[in-house]
Amino acid sequence: MKQLAKEIIPWLHEARQMILENLNRPMNVETKSAANDLVTSVDKNVQQFLISRLLEKFPEDKILGEEEGMNQLADFSGRVWVIDPIDGTLNFVLQKENFCIMLALYIDGKSQLGFIFDVMKNELYWGGATIGVFCNENPLPKPKDQTLDSGLMGTNAFLYGKNKYHAKDIGNATMGVRMIGCAGLEMIAILKGTELGYLSNLQPWDYAPGCALLDAFAIPYGSMDGEKLDLSRRQPFLAAQPTAYQEIQEKFFK
Amino acid sequence: MKQLAKEIIPWLHEARQMILENLNRPMNVETKSAANDLVTSVDKNVQQFLISRLLEKFPEDKILGEEEGMNQLADFSGRVWVIDPIDGTLNFVLQKENFCIMLALYIDGKSQLGFIFDVMKNELYWGGATIGVFCNENPLPKPKDQTLDSGLMGTNAFLYGKNKYHAKDIGNATMGVRMIGCAGLEMIAILKGTELGYLSNLQPWDYAPGCALLDAFAIPYGSMDGEKLDLSRRQPFLAAQPTAYQEIQEKFFK
Repeated sequence: MKQLAKEIIPWLHEARQMILENLNRPMNVETKSAANDLVTSVDKNVQQFLISRLLEKFPEDKILGEEEGMNQLADFSGRVWVIDPIDGTLNFVLQKENFCIMLALYIDGKSQLGFIFDVMKNELYWGGATIGVFCNENPLPKPKDQTLDSGLMGTNAFLYGKNKYHAKDIGNATMGVRMIGCAGLEMIAILKGTELGYLSNLQPWDYAPGCALLDAFAIPYGSMDGEKLDLSRRQPFLAAQPTAYQEIQEKFFK
Repeated sequence: MKQLAKEIIPWLHEARQMILENLNRPMNVETKSAANDLVTSVDKNVQQFLISRLLEKFPEDKILGEEEGMNQLADFSGRVWVIDPIDGTLNFVLQKENFCIMLALYIDGKSQLGFIFDVMKNELYWGGATIGVFCNENPLPKPKDQTLDSGLMGTNAFLYGKNKYHAKDIGNATMGVRMIGCAGLEMIAILKGTELGYLSNLQPWDYAPGCALLDAFAIPYGSMDGEKLDLSRRQPFLAAQPTAYQEIQEKFFK
């Protein structure tokens, strides 16, 4: 798997260069489901670039991608690559920072590899259950387990504001709530230990790459609707350090 | 004022070094008003260092500082330095990033100079109404004016969750809500144009340095309780691009 990851990494650096070259050029921005659900020509080009590299090398593999009608798969058996060309497109358009490129490999629904590339910080977090987690060339140490009241929780304003899935109750049981507006960067925060957990409503391409890295550290995650996360649809997502995760289950979902 | 700023800047770099040297050492963390209102030995040492430099050079000046009983002044006439040695202490302790050193000079209650130093990014934003805004050595261009529905709003979970001062209504009228947990970094986001506004409950040392920089760009701000921000106490604070600021006043406070 490490060898495979090292074949992928140069493509992600190429994708990053594509984004950097387009960052200050006029870009075509379209809305999707809502006024703040955006896609740009850069998202589409980066996805197309990654798909072409992947299929050139692995013509038999399946692909699930956020953009351009690639966002459904009938069947998740075998090798499936999950692509989010720009996670945090709203930040990409409005902030030109706080967004990332994400990619994951699943086999028969099980995580193998995950990649989260913080483009502006030039930090690529990558790895998987069998190889551990790296930030660029350096192994990332496993963050320490935490109780719910000992750290920060990432979430989004919609869930928090409506207390959906106890998002406000859970957030208020921590030391503080943070909202970055980018699932990948919230996953990085958990991996680094700068947040103890993350709670949001996510599409498969939002969570699959991060979950592959959480698996490397045995950090638990799941859907808050009681169903299995199965890469098929948007689901309410929770990940947290083991002790905090268990506290949340016991206090709010029993 | 620019000459004065250039005398101050080396002290801020010294303060940054003090913080970096202590970042990975065990530090004494105490709670203040609540379990998530922290002060560390580093906050205290940095404040003491800045006070000693300031009083050595300007022995007649007054000082308002977050820590150690310096947080009240009977009288804001004359020259007053406002110090927040570490803004975002919770991030400093839990994340070791996303915090800043802040300093401002006010004369007779009017902003003269402001400094916000993003320690981990090594980006010092400084300036004032008569000299403009700089990031390190480079002049910062004025961000473009924005309507409320065209950008992101920084706020905090407490106000948003309770819709205090219409925080939730205002946030929901934007393209999205962000929570960094550090007033200084939210101010930087407005100065760069990556957020259109910021809404929180702030102490004078949280807002004074940012306001000195907002004044340089004529970006409006004020207290949401209808009273004047007068450096004397915690107040509900709003800053936003002129068009968005006016929309907020008209839609929510008339």
